[in-house]
Amino acid sequence: MAADTTEGSIRAGIAGATGYAGQELIRLLARHPNATLTIATASQATSTPRRLPALARIWDGEVRPLDMAALASSTDVVFLALPEAASADLAPQLLAAGVRVIDLSGAFRLRDAAGRTKWYPATGGLPDGVAYGLTEFETPAIRQARLLSNPGCYPTASLLALLPLARAGLLAPGGDIIIDAKSGISGAGKAPTDRTHFCENHGSVAAYGVFGHRHTPEMEQALGQRVTFVPHLVPLDRGILASIYARLVPGTTAAQVSDAFDHAYAAAPFVRITGEALPEIKHVAHTNFCDIGWKVDEANTRVFLASAIDNLVKGAAGQALQNMNVMYGLDERTGLL
Amino acid sequence: MAADTTEGSIRAGIAGATGYAGQELIRLLARHPNATLTIATASQATSTPRRLPALARIWDGEVRPLDMAALASSTDVVFLALPEAASADLAPQLLAAGVRVIDLSGAFRLRDAAGRTKWYPATGGLPDGVAYGLTEFETPAIRQARLLSNPGCYPTASLLALLPLARAGLLAPGGDIIIDAKSGISGAGKAPTDRTHFCENHGSVAAYGVFGHRHTPEMEQALGQRVTFVPHLVPLDRGILASIYARLVPGTTAAQVSDAFDHAYAAAPFVRITGEALPEIKHVAHTNFCDIGWKVDEANTRVFLASAIDNLVKGAAGQALQNMNVMYGLDERTGLL
Amino acid sequence: MAADTTEGSIRAGIAGATGYAGQELIRLLARHPNATLTIATASQATSTPRRLPALARIWDGEVRPLDMAALASSTDVVFLALPEAASADLAPQLLAAGVRVIDLSGAFRLRDAAGRTKWYPATGGLPDGVAYGLTEFETPAIRQARLLSNPGCYPTASLLALLPLARAGLLAPGGDIIIDAKSGISGAGKAPTDRTHFCENHGSVAAYGVFGHRHTPEMEQALGQRVTFVPHLVPLDRGILASIYARLVPGTTAAQVSDAFDHAYAAAPFVRITGEALPEIKHVAHTNFCDIGWKVDEANTRVFLASAIDNLVKGAAGQALQNMNVMYGLDERTGLL
Amino acid sequence: MAADTTEGSIRAGIAGATGYAGQELIRLLARHPNATLTIATASQATSTPRRLPALARIWDGEVRPLDMAALASSTDVVFLALPEAASADLAPQLLAAGVRVIDLSGAFRLRDAAGRTKWYPATGGLPDGVAYGLTEFETPAIRQARLLSNPGCYPTASLLALLPLARAGLLAPGGDIIIDAKSGISGAGKAPTDRTHFCENHGSVAAYGVFGHRHTPEMEQALGQRVTFVPHLVPLDRGILASIYARLVPGTTAAQVSDAFDHAYAAAPFVRITGEALPEIKHVAHTNFCDIGWKVDEANTRVFLASAIDNLVKGAAGQALQNMNVMYGLDERTGLL
Repeated sequence: MAADTTEGSIRAGIAGATGYAGQELIRLLARHPNATLTIATASQATSTPRRLPALARIWDGEVRPLDMAALASSTDVVFLALPEAASADLAPQLLAAGVRVIDLSGAFRLRDAAGRTKWYPATGGLPDGVAYGLTEFETPAIRQARLLSNPGCYPTASLLALLPLARAGLLAPGGDIIIDAKSGISGAGKAPTDRTHFCENHGSVAAYGVFGHRHTPEMEQALGQRVTFVPHLVPLDRGILASIYARLVPGTTAAQVSDAFDHAYAAAPFVRITGEALPEIKHVAHTNFCDIGWKVDEANTRVFLASAIDNLVKGAAGQALQNMNVMYGLDERTGLL
Repeated sequence: MAADTTEGSIRAGIAGATGYAGQELIRLLARHPNATLTIATASQATSTPRRLPALARIWDGEVRPLDMAALASSTDVVFLALPEAASADLAPQLLAAGVRVIDLSGAFRLRDAAGRTKWYPATGGLPDGVAYGLTEFETPAIRQARLLSNPGCYPTASLLALLPLARAGLLAPGGDIIIDAKSGISGAGKAPTDRTHFCENHGSVAAYGVFGHRHTPEMEQALGQRVTFVPHLVPLDRGILASIYARLVPGTTAAQVSDAFDHAYAAAPFVRITGEALPEIKHVAHTNFCDIGWKVDEANTRVFLASAIDNLVKGAAGQALQNMNVMYGLDERTGLL
Repeated sequence: MAADTTEGSIRAGIAGATGYAGQELIRLLARHPNATLTIATASQATSTPRRLPALARIWDGEVRPLDMAALASSTDVVFLALPEAASADLAPQLLAAGVRVIDLSGAFRLRDAAGRTKWYPATGGLPDGVAYGLTEFETPAIRQARLLSNPGCYPTASLLALLPLARAGLLAPGGDIIIDAKSGISGAGKAPTDRTHFCENHGSVAAYGVFGHRHTPEMEQALGQRVTFVPHLVPLDRGILASIYARLVPGTTAAQVSDAFDHAYAAAPFVRITGEALPEIKHVAHTNFCDIGWKVDEANTRVFLASAIDNLVKGAAGQALQNMNVMYGLDERTGLL
Repeated sequence: MAADTTEGSIRAGIAGATGYAGQELIRLLARHPNATLTIATASQATSTPRRLPALARIWDGEVRPLDMAALASSTDVVFLALPEAASADLAPQLLAAGVRVIDLSGAFRLRDAAGRTKWYPATGGLPDGVAYGLTEFETPAIRQARLLSNPGCYPTASLLALLPLARAGLLAPGGDIIIDAKSGISGAGKAPTDRTHFCENHGSVAAYGVFGHRHTPEMEQALGQRVTFVPHLVPLDRGILASIYARLVPGTTAAQVSDAFDHAYAAAPFVRITGEALPEIKHVAHTNFCDIGWKVDEANTRVFLASAIDNLVKGAAGQALQNMNVMYGLDERTGLL
């Protein structure tokens, strides 16, 4: 690595800087007091570097074509906001050059070889020592990580609601967890398609990927339990609400559920338990918060959980930065509040 | 009743003409070839009748203050688009005057006395001979009805998806039906409240009424089975998507599910089975269609159903008119395609 | 032409049936009592004809690849909802086959050769006898037309507001008409582009085509006067509001403006003068109405005009059908109320 | 004033903390490095203080009922986000107690007595020494101000576009400036009304307050010139786009316009001249930027200006904080980037 020209500051790079997650990373890194965005690349960038008008005055650097040597020499850590095949290709090269990697794609999320082959066929084998970056549950591993796999947006919202109950042993064994998630259109990516056309979404809601979305195995891996997951697109730009229906171990009380959340998140600055007031996407948009509300129907031992995040912040760039903070021993809130 | 001045035409009146369902009724009746809107009233109407600018040239009549004598003397049938207490008060008077009544409130939906007391305390006892107007399943009773209770919007979307499977014996007994419904804001009514403010909904989604919405007993009454129902508000004006998760009797095949729908809806002009292409609210908005898509996860014998309607048309005014058509022996499509 | 198999009905065809205007044409023709949609083509249609799921039960025909011979042999009139170069190519062939043509593109809107070369370079010369289909002002020519050029969406909204004043001699000579128009995203077409992506429009408004939109010469041709025109995209799917600022001849009174509108639209079923209550896009969406409100600032002899239409109905398919009605001697409201 | 318990920090209070501007002030003050939010009041607050769930972890203080003594004793500066009559009442009391006041209402914007009587009849006379807080143009006065009047949202967007040309002598004398502004619904306030109902705005656009909005005299006061101003509501929550049409002094070149902007904003951190790329509300939402684009039609010496701000940030809370920064000798960007 070249000498650090920004004394005392983490030198951070972004590959894939022009997508929605990439732009959010720029925005967050630009105001981070302990990091400096030293390089941003995009495969679509022409040979002439270009500025991003919406980010003028926030970050006035230029996005350049992908350049491994430049990435490796000018950074301590690189955020990959790329399709998984590109991530699978780049990450080992950066690691070999001594750069830490935070990957926002699905390339390194699944540990099981069969699952990887089925859901991410273009990514090859899993490097050693990948940490799964669900910050609130993986802090020790994240601290040591050289390759961090940032969770999917739907798993982030869903797991933050379910894991406290699972860890407390309150979820009935044998599955029967249903996750009905509603996502803003930025979750479908920046590429213009029939699916992302304004007129196909305005005034409309539809399910997609029924029983076949690859965030399902990611959630099952973390929970050790089957889930039924159906995502929907709703007509807003950013945010996810995961509505979750789960069976509780018979006899579970609302107080036990409350305790499980208190226990899990006593020291978690970005999880807000809203209690009876159910979470609203609007309250978490443009923030790194995950708001979780819940209600127990004691009669039939079912719990309803609602979990809201901004898919581009806590579901992508924000959680990635929260993980960078942990990796570098900073307060995890740094640059995120 | 006064003499019918509109030879051969059904004389129809509306009480509650200025709400969203009331205005939709005006719009539909105005183009109905066999009915004439003879009177429209609204409790908020001042003593001076007023016109509705948005409906100019469609219906140029005037909305007047509520007047029982005028309603009774100028109509064959009256649509009540009122709060349930007002409906419970007016309907018997109109029936006594020989006028048929189609009620869009919840006043007459529940048959069970205990349920009525709990969920609709302001409505008193149930008159004899109420027909439940889920058109596709109640045609014989509707034909004879003098007092018709139009279904709720959520039950319409949900029951049209579930009843074919229930009637075919494909739903696992013992319940475990989850209905996660997404509704446009017109479902929250025309009154300006914090809940209906534009800025509280734009860019947001939230659940409400968890485990406590009064459409739940209406669905359970029709299904004879417990349901878990959670409605959500989504940022659009009209339309409902009900996402339904149900257990099937072990061994049920996708073909059996398909047959059940074909059997139920072979002669139903307003139910469209979309099959693998999941329904979208946009495709049913401003129509009386209910679009139903589904997918069976044969492994765990669960079915996912998605059912889309326009809450103001098939979920209110359109189905009410469809029922009027049946009551008067007309083709049920009349004025609705 | 082949024998008319639909006794007494106008046999209508559509070329370009899968765009937004084309689909609206299908919807309207399907419920027209005196016309039958005999053929619908689309250049993107594969060799296998395909159905349009959103229109199932409304029109269950199939969209096929473009086929001139089939179009010519099965229709009395063809609606062209195509890019202007395709229209310029097809229209003469259809006319030669004895079929009347209603063209929704800009191919035949400008009469001036220089203007045509500048704004529509791909369209070649202008056939004889083209009628400009601003229905309210061109009825006699439309009645005789074999080739009708349907106006642009912005000119329709703007001219319906301005022409009554221009014809009454109330507009100050020498120009100074400013048209600030707001359009829903369907006006940008069905092709997925950065410009039509949901996330680029949600929560946003922007001007485009400043001083350079080709609807400008169309408006100037009809008014005989320069206009300053700036269109904007607003986050909704369908509708246009044109806000117009014009100088009046000194001394013009509000009563004179009112009279001019009364005179122009006494017999026009689709123009509603809203007076002091300004028009709202919502009130005209999904209708063929043009709502016009206005206010005179008598002090400085300026008038503000607001004109609202649905860009896909009165601004495209609806006006095209209104013109077909006139061409065939039907009441112009037929199938449109 | 009580002793400052927050060493070295500006003690700031908010009266009117639960409206949209008030909440935005909380959000911004909470992250301001040199200010501490010591008290927030709201007239609707019950005697029991309450927390704001959406702001949990950002600011965990409590909003209490209005209490002059508490406001005066715990602050150096108070932001008034109140109706103008309440501001007119409170401001003098706070000033008398030695507290500086930044008022976001219209109470102190107009200097002319006749104008004040006409447009703000409930506000009484104008205190001495009010500074008008259009930061980019009034910095010296703002520095000294004890009572600062924060500009209206529409004037902020419009004046930042027009003043550079006016100061450079490029605008044709004698008026003829037209401002067609589009505002998100938060501009209509937090009170639920027919006007702010979701369904009245979704899919719609309408003008309001034609020739009669009280931001008109505010703009005319700053420009010394008549303006024609028509605001519109567009279906989004936050943001304004002002589209401005002005006559230039004959012979004015595009280069002169460009120079005027460069000259005016060389040192202005929050004004971004976008040049040919026109501004979009989305790019300024949730920021304190004002983006300005323009195009000269040299032929007829007219300029089109488009100016975009977030009405709650640069149009209210952000500019207020920017002004506080100037009043206290801080870099004006502090806490705002």
